[in-house]
Amino acid sequence: MKILIVNAGSSSLKYQLIDMADESTLAKGLVERIGMGGDGHANMKVDDQVVCDVVEPIPDHVKACHLMLGFLTDPEKGVVKDMKEIGAVGHRVLHGGSKFTESVVIDDTVLDAIAENIPLGPLHNPANLMGIKACQEVMPGTPMVAVFDTAFHQTMPPKAYMYGVPYEYYERLHVRRYGFHGTSHRFVSRHAAEFMGKKPEEVKMITCHLGNGSSLAAVAYGKCVDTSMGITPLEGMIMGTRSGVMDPAVIQYICNNDHISVDEMLNICNKKSGLLGISGLSNDMRDIEKATFVDNNPRARLAWDMLIYEITKYIGSYIAGMNGTDAIVFTGGIGENTNRLREQVIDGLSWMGIAIDHEKNAAMRPGHAEDTDLTAEGSRVKILVIPTNEEIAIARDTLELVTKL
Amino acid sequence: MKILIVNAGSSSLKYQLIDMADESTLAKGLVERIGMGGDGHANMKVDDQVVCDVVEPIPDHVKACHLMLGFLTDPEKGVVKDMKEIGAVGHRVLHGGSKFTESVVIDDTVLDAIAENIPLGPLHNPANLMGIKACQEVMPGTPMVAVFDTAFHQTMPPKAYMYGVPYEYYERLHVRRYGFHGTSHRFVSRHAAEFMGKKPEEVKMITCHLGNGSSLAAVAYGKCVDTSMGITPLEGMIMGTRSGVMDPAVIQYICNNDHISVDEMLNICNKKSGLLGISGLSNDMRDIEKATFVDNNPRARLAWDMLIYEITKYIGSYIAGMNGTDAIVFTGGIGENTNRLREQVIDGLSWMGIAIDHEKNAAMRPGHAEDTDLTAEGSRVKILVIPTNEEIAIARDTLELVTKL
Repeated sequence: MKILIVNAGSSSLKYQLIDMADESTLAKGLVERIGMGGDGHANMKVDDQVVCDVVEPIPDHVKACHLMLGFLTDPEKGVVKDMKEIGAVGHRVLHGGSKFTESVVIDDTVLDAIAENIPLGPLHNPANLMGIKACQEVMPGTPMVAVFDTAFHQTMPPKAYMYGVPYEYYERLHVRRYGFHGTSHRFVSRHAAEFMGKKPEEVKMITCHLGNGSSLAAVAYGKCVDTSMGITPLEGMIMGTRSGVMDPAVIQYICNNDHISVDEMLNICNKKSGLLGISGLSNDMRDIEKATFVDNNPRARLAWDMLIYEITKYIGSYIAGMNGTDAIVFTGGIGENTNRLREQVIDGLSWMGIAIDHEKNAAMRPGHAEDTDLTAEGSRVKILVIPTNEEIAIARDTLELVTKL
Repeated sequence: MKILIVNAGSSSLKYQLIDMADESTLAKGLVERIGMGGDGHANMKVDDQVVCDVVEPIPDHVKACHLMLGFLTDPEKGVVKDMKEIGAVGHRVLHGGSKFTESVVIDDTVLDAIAENIPLGPLHNPANLMGIKACQEVMPGTPMVAVFDTAFHQTMPPKAYMYGVPYEYYERLHVRRYGFHGTSHRFVSRHAAEFMGKKPEEVKMITCHLGNGSSLAAVAYGKCVDTSMGITPLEGMIMGTRSGVMDPAVIQYICNNDHISVDEMLNICNKKSGLLGISGLSNDMRDIEKATFVDNNPRARLAWDMLIYEITKYIGSYIAGMNGTDAIVFTGGIGENTNRLREQVIDGLSWMGIAIDHEKNAAMRPGHAEDTDLTAEGSRVKILVIPTNEEIAIARDTLELVTKL
């Protein structure tokens, strides 16, 4: 079966067509500037070469879907002859709340539930819904599946997901930790177990998804028991532009001193903080690494040191929270490609008997990460790099659910 | 020398007179409802017996100081013949900002600096100042010393004290982690080293000050390198009525849903959250423990589980952050007296080779904590109970500084 993966944002739509026979990518592309006035932009790549590219007004997600399908079925450049070759669509959806603990076939009840979670995911869930409805309109009859960023984390126990605010906020407003990047943590944790020659039910591990957004998950015997992102993706360590977790009084203090609203402050925490806000240079870890170790920039060094320290502390907290771990797994753009980060983090855990093979680690080629065992001899804990692949994870869920229909 | 210790709040003043010859408490007492209209209340205890007790209007801190001195020098009930027997006064001051890294003799420059830190300690610093000025007025010529709750933590490295918000907030508004309970963490960490037969410079330890307010500190070779409280005492684990640290988006989400201001929300986080807010029962750990293990109350159990889990994770994060520890030290009302908490926390660290002696721990008598070694045989890390004594710590600093004058 060929499965189309769709990730719809408020003004963009990313897609990828996967042939499940060998899990190969037939084509992928991007539609941008949807509904923003003026011209939008849409393209499709095959084998990493742009084969279709148009610039024209794209007023809504329905138009975006028409463009996408036009590319995919184009008689010359397309990769399928007919839309009917596409057996199903898998949609990435940000926020499934507490309701969705796994992926589901989309029906009206599911659409309603995604809409109900808009207060928790006010930026993403409406866009995800638009993407689903647009696809339903242009591909009537094609089964569709929703895969939630939050689902994998729903096995967390209350002690890990509750916040310290009065209990009524949990009952009335559903205030709790949800966690994100769940599709990645699930994919990587299962694949890591397999790579270790174990079943997921046999091992404890900490999966470190480090990218422009970063989260860690504590996964015990196949189930997520804790994660660093919270009610939103802001919580956790510093990220590209996100501050990570803080004394909530920081928000109050800055709001009151600068006479700005809590919404303005949270926008700063999400968009102008983290590596970018500390360094004043860039949200990109490659720039931070170069500025720290080549240019000797003190604020880049601070951002670097904070990130290393915070990741190290989170790993320590999850080792304590699970009372041990069998593996620490790195994934995501930074986790897969920043060799020095893995080295510094793991070197800080030597007291616990955890060690990385420095030679093997240094030999990793940025941009070419493969499943790799970096465990030093004698280490109590496996150190692994497992490249994430959220599209394949979404496609597998979609195939499994659609096959049962 | 006899030294008077003063802890002034906005409407209260606690005091204690200590004879430094043997560090014995000669008398202690409380003045309450200062400046609140109607009658205030003042008392003095000697050997834990109330010997003086008055109810009358107490319009300001000067009147409170007059009452205190009247009690101390009372011909019948007093403990000194003349005010001149009091060689110095040690004042507890909440917020020393980044300026004060240790205790100081109070002069006009110090008073100005405490006033400068009012934005960081808006509730406490003005009250502390009133207490100092009132004492100066009624005890002219007596040397006075300020001992800051934040001072011990000022050795933290930037990677531990910086938040992930844009750097300009640090430069312009002094937004950073300060930490509190510093006098307790310093006293307990030094005493713990001594109890271990070591110099503070020889050991790494984690001091757990657990009470109605709770904080942990990572102390490496005599210096604080990290602590759980932040720009205010709200950060950290759940406390009696404080939420502890959270995704800052929780503040935004509740403010926007309930149409309340950030100040109202932070008041809820400080006064109505934590053990009280989760359990709906009490901010007192003794009540929570009873409700959990005797009454089987599910929300008390949740509050208990959250606290154990969060303390365990903080300890793990500091072990990772320091790459090891030689000791874990419990202090404060809960740390000294809640045997089951110590047991559950340390049992969760067995993978790291850390173990508590269950028998010795269970034999601790609540309310009668003494310096105790609870380390199980074979544990890599010492487990200690060291009762805190902030008044003695303040008195020692005061004596040392005044002696140099």
